[in-house]
Amino acid sequence: MRCELVAVGTELLLGQVVDTNSVWLSERLAASGIDCHFHTSVGDNIERIASVLRIALDRSDAVIVSGGLGPTQDDITRDAIASVMGVALERDEAVLARIRSLFEERGREMVASNERQADVPKGAVVIPQTRGTAPGLICPVGDKVLYAVPGVAEELKDMATRAVLPDLMARAGTSATIVSRMVRTWGLAESTLAERVAPRVEALEAAGNPTLAFLATGVEGIKVRITAKASSHDEALAMVDAEDAELRALLGPLVFGVDGDSMEAAVGALLEGAGLTLGLAESMTGGLVASRLVNVEGSSAWFKGSVVAYDSQVKFDVLRVPEGPVVSESAAAAMARGAAEVLGADVGLSVTGVAGPAGQEGMPVGTVFIGLHLDGAAEVSHQRLPGDRERIRQLAAISMLDMLRRRLLDRPGRTR
Amino acid sequence: MRCELVAVGTELLLGQVVDTNSVWLSERLAASGIDCHFHTSVGDNIERIASVLRIALDRSDAVIVSGGLGPTQDDITRDAIASVMGVALERDEAVLARIRSLFEERGREMVASNERQADVPKGAVVIPQTRGTAPGLICPVGDKVLYAVPGVAEELKDMATRAVLPDLMARAGTSATIVSRMVRTWGLAESTLAERVAPRVEALEAAGNPTLAFLATGVEGIKVRITAKASSHDEALAMVDAEDAELRALLGPLVFGVDGDSMEAAVGALLEGAGLTLGLAESMTGGLVASRLVNVEGSSAWFKGSVVAYDSQVKFDVLRVPEGPVVSESAAAAMARGAAEVLGADVGLSVTGVAGPAGQEGMPVGTVFIGLHLDGAAEVSHQRLPGDRERIRQLAAISMLDMLRRRLLDRPGRTR
Repeated sequence: MRCELVAVGTELLLGQVVDTNSVWLSERLAASGIDCHFHTSVGDNIERIASVLRIALDRSDAVIVSGGLGPTQDDITRDAIASVMGVALERDEAVLARIRSLFEERGREMVASNERQADVPKGAVVIPQTRGTAPGLICPVGDKVLYAVPGVAEELKDMATRAVLPDLMARAGTSATIVSRMVRTWGLAESTLAERVAPRVEALEAAGNPTLAFLATGVEGIKVRITAKASSHDEALAMVDAEDAELRALLGPLVFGVDGDSMEAAVGALLEGAGLTLGLAESMTGGLVASRLVNVEGSSAWFKGSVVAYDSQVKFDVLRVPEGPVVSESAAAAMARGAAEVLGADVGLSVTGVAGPAGQEGMPVGTVFIGLHLDGAAEVSHQRLPGDRERIRQLAAISMLDMLRRRLLDRPGRTR
Repeated sequence: MRCELVAVGTELLLGQVVDTNSVWLSERLAASGIDCHFHTSVGDNIERIASVLRIALDRSDAVIVSGGLGPTQDDITRDAIASVMGVALERDEAVLARIRSLFEERGREMVASNERQADVPKGAVVIPQTRGTAPGLICPVGDKVLYAVPGVAEELKDMATRAVLPDLMARAGTSATIVSRMVRTWGLAESTLAERVAPRVEALEAAGNPTLAFLATGVEGIKVRITAKASSHDEALAMVDAEDAELRALLGPLVFGVDGDSMEAAVGALLEGAGLTLGLAESMTGGLVASRLVNVEGSSAWFKGSVVAYDSQVKFDVLRVPEGPVVSESAAAAMARGAAEVLGADVGLSVTGVAGPAGQEGMPVGTVFIGLHLDGAAEVSHQRLPGDRERIRQLAAISMLDMLRRRLLDRPGRTR
């Protein structure tokens, strides 16, 4: 089954918007085992949209077109589809009633142009709208199919998950349900991780189900995607759970979460579980770690704050670091202790180093000392990070969080 | 002149990479007055690449294809182009010599597969490589043209600016040079800004040159793009300069920079010019402002650091804020003074407020107090910001920077 993507919107062609919808849809298609060979973006022009849809239907079995389903005059995807299907648009009274009630629920007035969103090409099946006012459409074209979904990311994801992907899977002839999960790891290069996981890849090769795939995501680590097919959701989920357990047995603490889990959320959960509070002393990361931690819901329960000591004098005066070289193991240890004491936290986590562009105190660019003060003792990790200023800073931030996470996992008394 | 874009790479179709190259090229084409009606992404498959190029050449005057020019076996854009042109690939000795010397300069060994990058379709003109090892190509196809550039963003931008866009402009028959500039503003909604700029839009309407366009960029403010055409670069630049001055006369301090200038860079330049140092006290922004400031080159000359006082006790203990409600005008003022004193800075800038999801101390979500301590006096701005938690935090951060910028501009003794 081959399905391609068409995104509608002149703003895409002017470079005003990044097409992240196609990225999301592509990921979902790949995870569902459906081939996608082409993406096309086209502007708000009926002839050009129709021509792109015809080309797409000619070379693929299915097409998902997103955008151009709004109420304004330049929202013409419905018209282009009707033209490609060779049918007329008909007003669907049930859809219209639903649009009316959505406006009423929100206490807003419905203008006449919104009625256009109830126009449906004859022969198309409506995907009911649950978030926005525009319904989606499933449009048969010969023995092929064209799905139309709104360009608003939230509405697109909802309709794709609820209607488009299940319909595609059904047409692909597999009654199988697919469940996939991203196991997130940090601390190994992709090639090294692949070596560690090789026994599982080999074990799964013969059956070909579930499958494993690697996805590098820059400073945020490597993801391992588990995809399982089965005749029921529960069965597929059980296969994913089993493989997840196998991976964790191989990778241990390299795994910090699944799917949308962040490193900072993993750290927050461990702190909360241990009843500990955290204070930071940040030099080269300049507040980056703090700003990641406050994005975790409920962080006020365990996050006290950060002393961003960009200037050396702030390290001496506020964090009580003894005067001397500040890019050093002893400065990192003193900063971590200072952070805990000054901010009234149980745990102190610090960083000092050289982000560049020039070296400092005779230390080369990329030198990083991470200090951790916990249970009355300090430890320091000395690393040399690659990349430019921004990358070194990002890597330092996640390295700090990972060091704290690993240390909390190893803490005596903790049951895994 | 119509030019469309083709991006080559299976990773694009798997959703592993966001196609930011097309966004950048689209912006440049729009600024150059060249219409772009279609974007297509296609995988590393020679028949499919060739078919996409044929479709594109059929409906546009020019095509820019990016990616697939590397040394590995799946880099086959050169082969697809040769097939579309109906010619053979020929090894270009000058290009090969250049690749060899690039490897020698970097002290790396050149493997045989790199020689493929010297293969050029017969009849194509080479765009010399200056950054990577792959040259670009200008390929005539009938009376149309196909440009091939590498997918690496840095190399793509270099070749597009140096060779592709000038060649396109020349073919467009205009000997005109186009110069454009983004004037960056902060503090007004798009509609209000458009009203303020209306006199200039009207004044320019008759001649149609230069032109003005508005571009909203979320929390980072509204950009006004000035585009001027003239027979020489200097003449076009003079027109842009003149219109830039007109806009600044209308907009005054709403303008904080041009093109890639950031709000934090504007603040840094003003601090440096005034010989002042800055310390922050951040509550709801959680280090976000500090992390923006340290990204400004040379920030260590004027940035001391930040106390991220997420917990109220840190405000009382470290910043010496009197005990009491912390989402208040008086707390913001005390935090600003505390930041300056504790961090040893001339200027203290603070924020306290409610990012949500729940209200705090009887204050609704979005309530923000920004404190500024400068020249021995404190002032506080009370705002109510819209959006979700993340947006409120981002808006608070840029509001802080803008308040400091405006205050430094108004400082007695400063000559604008």
